[in-house]
Amino acid sequence: MLGEFDMIERLLRPLARGQAGAFDLADDAALIHDREGRGLVVTTDTLVEGTHFLPDDPPDSVGRKLVRVNLSDMVAKAARPVAAFLNLAWPRRRPASQLEALIGGLGADLAELCGEVPLMGGDTTATDGPLVLTLTLMGSPVGPRPVLRRGAAPGDVVCVTGTIGDAGLGLAVLSQGLVLEAPEGPVAAYRTPQPPPLAFTPALARFARAGLDVSDGLLADLGHLARASGVAVVLELDQIPLSQAGHDWLIGQADPLAAAIWLAGRGDDYQTLLACRPTDWPLVQAAAADLGLPLTRIGACRGGDGVIPRWTGEPVRIDPAATGWRHSLG
Amino acid sequence: MLGEFDMIERLLRPLARGQAGAFDLADDAALIHDREGRGLVVTTDTLVEGTHFLPDDPPDSVGRKLVRVNLSDMVAKAARPVAAFLNLAWPRRRPASQLEALIGGLGADLAELCGEVPLMGGDTTATDGPLVLTLTLMGSPVGPRPVLRRGAAPGDVVCVTGTIGDAGLGLAVLSQGLVLEAPEGPVAAYRTPQPPPLAFTPALARFARAGLDVSDGLLADLGHLARASGVAVVLELDQIPLSQAGHDWLIGQADPLAAAIWLAGRGDDYQTLLACRPTDWPLVQAAAADLGLPLTRIGACRGGDGVIPRWTGEPVRIDPAATGWRHSLG
Repeated sequence: MLGEFDMIERLLRPLARGQAGAFDLADDAALIHDREGRGLVVTTDTLVEGTHFLPDDPPDSVGRKLVRVNLSDMVAKAARPVAAFLNLAWPRRRPASQLEALIGGLGADLAELCGEVPLMGGDTTATDGPLVLTLTLMGSPVGPRPVLRRGAAPGDVVCVTGTIGDAGLGLAVLSQGLVLEAPEGPVAAYRTPQPPPLAFTPALARFARAGLDVSDGLLADLGHLARASGVAVVLELDQIPLSQAGHDWLIGQADPLAAAIWLAGRGDDYQTLLACRPTDWPLVQAAAADLGLPLTRIGACRGGDGVIPRWTGEPVRIDPAATGWRHSLG
Repeated sequence: MLGEFDMIERLLRPLARGQAGAFDLADDAALIHDREGRGLVVTTDTLVEGTHFLPDDPPDSVGRKLVRVNLSDMVAKAARPVAAFLNLAWPRRRPASQLEALIGGLGADLAELCGEVPLMGGDTTATDGPLVLTLTLMGSPVGPRPVLRRGAAPGDVVCVTGTIGDAGLGLAVLSQGLVLEAPEGPVAAYRTPQPPPLAFTPALARFARAGLDVSDGLLADLGHLARASGVAVVLELDQIPLSQAGHDWLIGQADPLAAAIWLAGRGDDYQTLLACRPTDWPLVQAAAADLGLPLTRIGACRGGDGVIPRWTGEPVRIDPAATGWRHSLG
């Protein structure tokens, strides 16, 4: 599908008509200006059964994942949700009890994680195919403007919240027979990702020069930041934050470098990746620590382009086909 | 599915948290207020292959239909689109050439019918199931506020743009083997509906006390207007505007009353249904005539509730199961 997605981008981009807030359909959110020039941040994500979640995933967790993959964009852009819209294509063959569980999970997360954002509308239809859900969140920038993929400069520190690779391990457990000693954490990370809380957005608004959520894989998303900002990003592969489960899995692998690259190429992490000035790094770190939010320095920006992966300080080569997967546009 | 959709409404309504602009998820659009209290009208519709269009419909017309079913809401609410978002779940088995045609039709209609509204974002994913498309339009009310389903009062004239029932006939031709002498018009009405133009919105903003688009069937949508406004609507079934094809089909039926009821129960018309003061009726009529837009008086509001169908002036009974189909919420 990679070729087709490139084609979709090429076909859709002219429809943006050069509107500044569309960011050439190459950011994770759009900025709609009202007549006073103030912005409304809009993000929308679609989950398809069999592509973004498994047919047997608990319906409650599907509802929660739908909220979280959108909230993840909103947080990374340093915006606060003000309205939600739900489009649901519900399979005729699924029992109604599953619907109740799904909407229960969705409603709980809209309330608890999204600051009680109201559901303002949507559309519900029946389908003979897989379950397809779209959530659209609109939000207000917490600072004077949202954080974009562009804006990082040479010398900036690059850091990421939470841990990386757990959802990839969880998916491998669920669908590829990977055996882990403690699979619960990775499986939960796949089904109900944990983006950073809205409480982190003031720090992002203040200090992040560029940022996005990690949804396509850390390597791919670093590439997005590098390309949009016109910089190279040096990534210290041995500094990527891992959970205990990720660490245990990695040290059991024959080739830990290949294992780290695999974890950095999975996607579905829904953590926030950001670049900040070196002088601001201690301040961002302190803001995250105040919230009990893990935040790890994983690299730095410099002149050039692309992602420059290193392992214990030495540059390494990565097969581009292994660097991530793409399922989203704009 | 009727019971399930009622359940979805019941489950989702609390998530609106009583926000005024959500209209209890019972209007066709939502109103988001900015900090100055000015509104942004939001409408979103999902089309599912096999439910809202046929697998063999030309991809160009699928793209156009997606725009038109949303534009239809925007026009009926008397708002002008300012931003569009596209969520596409694209079947892996469909050839890329179809994608080009679909986005071509979508882009042409966003430009020509929606006032060159920019596509600001969205999400594209792959699916192993049917094609599922969601378009979200955001718009500015043309008047001080959008037209809602509520607001009609006893004595108001009820009228509708265009003709009714063509899409229903077209679908019957395409999927049920109905034979018409001239099927092209009805088939085109099903595939590429013709909502009233944006140029009609100033008249709607000025004169429509209540209104909505006819998507669930004229009878069902009159019921929505009646319920939201707290009035009864008398519908003169013999006054429903028919195309030549609709007229020719109707006079060929053994029971023309049953045939009129069938046409009024189909859905997918995407015309604007509105109520206005009797003194404003000539003005609305003149505004429509200036645009070459057919507008037909089909009934009136009075005290009471529900839809009161009449045939040549006499009340008739309609089996509720025949009055329309529901595929949308909010």
